[in-house]
Amino acid sequence: MKKTRLCDLLGIEYPIIQGGMVWIANAELAAAVSNAGGLGLISPTAGMSPNGDQVANLKQQIKTARSLTSKPFGINLAILGSPHIEDLIAAVIIERVSVVVTAAGNPALYTSRLKEAGIKVLHVAAAVRHAQSAERRGVDGIIAEGYEAGGHNGTDELTTFALIPQVVDAVTIPVVAAGGIADARGVVAALALGADGVQMGTRFVATHECVAHPNFKEAIVKANDVDTVITARKLAPARILKNEVATRILEMETAGASAEELIAFIGIARSRTGQLEGDLANGEAYCGSIAGMIKEIKSAGEIIGSIVSNYDTVLASLR
Amino acid sequence: MKKTRLCDLLGIEYPIIQGGMVWIANAELAAAVSNAGGLGLISPTAGMSPNGDQVANLKQQIKTARSLTSKPFGINLAILGSPHIEDLIAAVIIERVSVVVTAAGNPALYTSRLKEAGIKVLHVAAAVRHAQSAERRGVDGIIAEGYEAGGHNGTDELTTFALIPQVVDAVTIPVVAAGGIADARGVVAALALGADGVQMGTRFVATHECVAHPNFKEAIVKANDVDTVITARKLAPARILKNEVATRILEMETAGASAEELIAFIGIARSRTGQLEGDLANGEAYCGSIAGMIKEIKSAGEIIGSIVSNYDTVLASLR
Repeated sequence: MKKTRLCDLLGIEYPIIQGGMVWIANAELAAAVSNAGGLGLISPTAGMSPNGDQVANLKQQIKTARSLTSKPFGINLAILGSPHIEDLIAAVIIERVSVVVTAAGNPALYTSRLKEAGIKVLHVAAAVRHAQSAERRGVDGIIAEGYEAGGHNGTDELTTFALIPQVVDAVTIPVVAAGGIADARGVVAALALGADGVQMGTRFVATHECVAHPNFKEAIVKANDVDTVITARKLAPARILKNEVATRILEMETAGASAEELIAFIGIARSRTGQLEGDLANGEAYCGSIAGMIKEIKSAGEIIGSIVSNYDTVLASLR
Repeated sequence: MKKTRLCDLLGIEYPIIQGGMVWIANAELAAAVSNAGGLGLISPTAGMSPNGDQVANLKQQIKTARSLTSKPFGINLAILGSPHIEDLIAAVIIERVSVVVTAAGNPALYTSRLKEAGIKVLHVAAAVRHAQSAERRGVDGIIAEGYEAGGHNGTDELTTFALIPQVVDAVTIPVVAAGGIADARGVVAALALGADGVQMGTRFVATHECVAHPNFKEAIVKANDVDTVITARKLAPARILKNEVATRILEMETAGASAEELIAFIGIARSRTGQLEGDLANGEAYCGSIAGMIKEIKSAGEIIGSIVSNYDTVLASLR
C-alpha cells in the first residue's frame, strides 16, 4: 500500500486514521489502530460518565494507551461549545501527545500553542474555505469530511466525492478524506481523488476493541444503505442511525421547533445513551451511511490488515 | 484507460456516459461525446420550446445525431410524470436507438419492450433496493446516482462514495457511477469503488457543443464548492445553482409551503428558463456540486481526451 506524505508527517506506516468519536474512541481502540500501523485517536469523553471530568478521563486514557502501544496516537478535540477546551489543550501539551485533531471550531485559537509544543495539528473541514482558513492558521493537515460521515457534519452538505478534489486543489498541506470509507476500495478511491490518507469512524466502531455498546455495534452490522439520516439540519447537522429519537427530532423540525426546543430535547448526553449505554430507543447513535457495507465486527488490526492486503488487488482491477 | 464490461455492453471505447439532461442534452453534444469514444445521451426536450412536441423533437434530434456520428448514442427518458412516455417509448423503438436510460420511474413498465426491440436499457437508481428491483426487471445496467449530482436526485440522500460500493455488492450487472465526477481523478475513484463506468452531467454542460445558454455555462465556470443547494427536499429533491429562485423555494419550504404551492411556483419549465434561456434570476439551473472544480468551457472531445490521457497518471500516483 502506498506510503504517503501523511505517513511521514505523523510517523505512521499506513495513511489510515481512526476517527476520535465522542464517548467511544477509547484508548484500547486507538492503541490497536496505532499498533496496526495507522493512527488511533482518543476522545476525552471516551467511556466517561455523563458528568465526568474530561481532563482526568483524558489523562487516564492517554496513560492506558501508552501502556498498550509505543506508536504515535492522537487526541480529538472539539473546540466549539466545549467548556473544558482550555484545560484539555493544556493537558495534551503537558502530556506531549503526538497529534491533535481539532474539529468544530476556529483553528486560529489553539494551533500555534499546540505546534509550539511539538504537536502535529490536523483540522477537520467540510468546505474549501474552511480548509484554506485552517491552512493559513498553520495546521499540518486537513481532514476533509463529507456529508456521508457519521455524527456532526457541515451545513454545506458537500460529499466526499465532491469535497476531496476541490480541497486538494485549494491547499498544499496533506488532506485526509473522511466519510463513506470502510474498505480498500474506499481507500484507493480517496487517494485517487487526491487525498493523502483516510479517516474512518463507523468501521472502527464495529470492532472488538471499541468501548461502544454491543447494541450499537450490532445495529451497524444490521444496517442497510438507507438506515442513517441527517437530524437537526439547520441547527447542527448530525448523521445518526434511524430510530425513534431520529424520528422524533425530524418531527420536531417539520413542526418548526426552535433551536432551544431541539437543544432541550437532544441534550448533551443523548449520543452517550445510544453509543455507550446501548439504549437505541432513547439514545442517538452517530453513524455514517457506509454502515450498510459493514457486515461483521472485527478487530481493528484485521480491518487495517484487510485494507493493506486488498489495496493492490483494487489497484490491479483498474488497469 | 481500462476497457470495462460496460464498453462491451454498449459498444463504446471508454466507459464514459454523458448525462441526458432535460432541455439541454442535444444531438450535437451527444454526437461529440460518442465520436470521442463515450456514449452521448439525448433528452427528448433538448432545445425545445416550453410546449413543444417531445416526440417530434426527439425524432429530429436523433436524425441530427445520426448525421454527426456513426457511433452508438442513447436517449434519456424520465418515466414518472411524463405524459408523453408511451409515444416516446414507441419512437425510440421505431428509431432503433442503441441505448435507453430510464429514470425516475418504475423499470417494470418498459424494460422488456425496449429489450425485445434490441435496445440496451440502463436504469437510474439512488439506493440499493431500487438497483436490485431494476436488475430483477431485466435492465442491462444501473446508473447509480449520488446526492452530489445535479438535478433531481433520490430522497435517501446516498452519496456517490457510499452508494457505489453498496450497489456494486448488491447486483451483478454493470454499475455506472454518477454524481461528483468531472475529471480523471473521479473516474479512477469511481472504478476503484467498483463501478464499471461513469456518467457526467455538469462537466458536459460546460462544453461548446451543449445547447445550454452561455449564462448557465459561465455560472458553472464561476461556481465554487458551496454554490449548489438541494431544493424541494421533501417533494422532489433537485440540486440547483444557488440563485434567487433557490432562495425563494427554500423560504417557501421553511414557511411550510404545501406540495401544491411548491409545484405551482416551480412550474414545469422553470429549469428551461435557467438552462436554455439563461435567465438565472428567474430560472432553475440543475447543477452538480462538482461545479466548483470546472474552470473552463471545453469541447466534449477535449474532456474525454483529458480523462483518457490522465487516467494512467492518476493510477501511477496510487502506487
